[in-house]
Amino acid sequence: METSNVSITSYKNYICFMRKGLIISIVVNILCLPLAGIYLVRKIQFYNSLAPKPISIKNENIFWKIRSSEFRTFEVDSNSIVFIGDSHTQFFEVAEAFHNAHCKNRGIALDGTKSVLDRIDFIVDKHPKKIFIQVGINDLLNGASPNSVSEEIREVIKKTKAVSPNTAIYLQSVFPTNWNKYQAKTPVLSDIKSLNLKLKTLAFETKCEYIDLYNAFLKGSGLNSLYDCGDSLHLNGLGYLLWRDSLKRYVN
Amino acid sequence: METSNVSITSYKNYICFMRKGLIISIVVNILCLPLAGIYLVRKIQFYNSLAPKPISIKNENIFWKIRSSEFRTFEVDSNSIVFIGDSHTQFFEVAEAFHNAHCKNRGIALDGTKSVLDRIDFIVDKHPKKIFIQVGINDLLNGASPNSVSEEIREVIKKTKAVSPNTAIYLQSVFPTNWNKYQAKTPVLSDIKSLNLKLKTLAFETKCEYIDLYNAFLKGSGLNSLYDCGDSLHLNGLGYLLWRDSLKRYVN
Repeated sequence: METSNVSITSYKNYICFMRKGLIISIVVNILCLPLAGIYLVRKIQFYNSLAPKPISIKNENIFWKIRSSEFRTFEVDSNSIVFIGDSHTQFFEVAEAFHNAHCKNRGIALDGTKSVLDRIDFIVDKHPKKIFIQVGINDLLNGASPNSVSEEIREVIKKTKAVSPNTAIYLQSVFPTNWNKYQAKTPVLSDIKSLNLKLKTLAFETKCEYIDLYNAFLKGSGLNSLYDCGDSLHLNGLGYLLWRDSLKRYVN
Repeated sequence: METSNVSITSYKNYICFMRKGLIISIVVNILCLPLAGIYLVRKIQFYNSLAPKPISIKNENIFWKIRSSEFRTFEVDSNSIVFIGDSHTQFFEVAEAFHNAHCKNRGIALDGTKSVLDRIDFIVDKHPKKIFIQVGINDLLNGASPNSVSEEIREVIKKTKAVSPNTAIYLQSVFPTNWNKYQAKTPVLSDIKSLNLKLKTLAFETKCEYIDLYNAFLKGSGLNSLYDCGDSLHLNGLGYLLWRDSLKRYVN
């Protein structure tokens, strides 16, 4: 009986010890499970947010709203020389660069060809003298194919010619960059080269002027560091001077 | 003995059951603890990132780099009419609005008074004809006191007058907004009112022209929705037209 009593006591002690351990462990479970759950759900949401999206990017942020609204009130006229595009164009102080108040900036950071196509109407329906287009890098970075970008730019030209046949259209090549495509993480440069080739052909077919900026800004496999603001995508002051000088004879 | 054996067997079963429970619970802990830990550390980092920072904001993002670099190459001259400030100014197509190629945009989104003070040198050392200043809303949103903002703007004026005494200085009031201070989440409007009062006095003391835009854009306790691009801080096209009309007689 004594042995048995000893065993029972030691079992009881062991159970008491384990019970304490289990209680602590369950408390830790209760505390950690919801936090770990939240963490996992957020991670899944994050990776879902990176999943491929429709390739035609539509720019709808607050800056697009500000700029679009301003562009609808500040009107273009038949003397206007309009620069349409993305952040490269938006940051280009065109009236100042060409010392010409007829030069009007219609660039919006993050814009892609779809957005330009959507907003070309209220530029060209005022029959501007000239338009300078540079768009496509945001589409390519977002994974769009050079062919789809070039076809959307063809639509921009088609719309312009239909509404305002006397507007001179200048199609600028896309600048080189060392950036990668957002999702695929592969360099976008070969897509840029391919797009620019298509744009050159497109300009020839549609009787627009093609302006090769790519080779002026290229060094090695990307944007020449002389003209790089520091992110290997956007221009610095010297870059803007080179851009101005490359366009001067077409603007004036 | 039988009772005792039964007890021992049931204790053994109980222990076996508890052991399984404990193992499962510990496994769950091992899985969840690191995730919960990461979640908590990130939360703490997030709340730390919201903690009060030095009140003079210094704008150092990529857009600041692009714009600053461009501004250093595109030079101001003695005929220039320079608009210096934050996003409000940056998105204001001034050359177009006033149809005057001497109008130069020196606005940078997110800029505060400290940044304007840092970059006023390479504007005023070319002795521009006029400068229009509008800055301070980003400082106030960031928690700076109206007094500290107004004193920094006093330094901007002091620097300008010391380097270029013949430059006419136009001090514009800060626009109304319904936004709250980033950290305190309290409305910033009373700070704007207080800053504008100080700017009016400052303009009087320093013999600058004070331009009251606040009352032109106010409705109720914020930005008049007629001029609001949709975020109750930035202007829409009609807002830019009103701003242009409010400045016309000073620009020309």
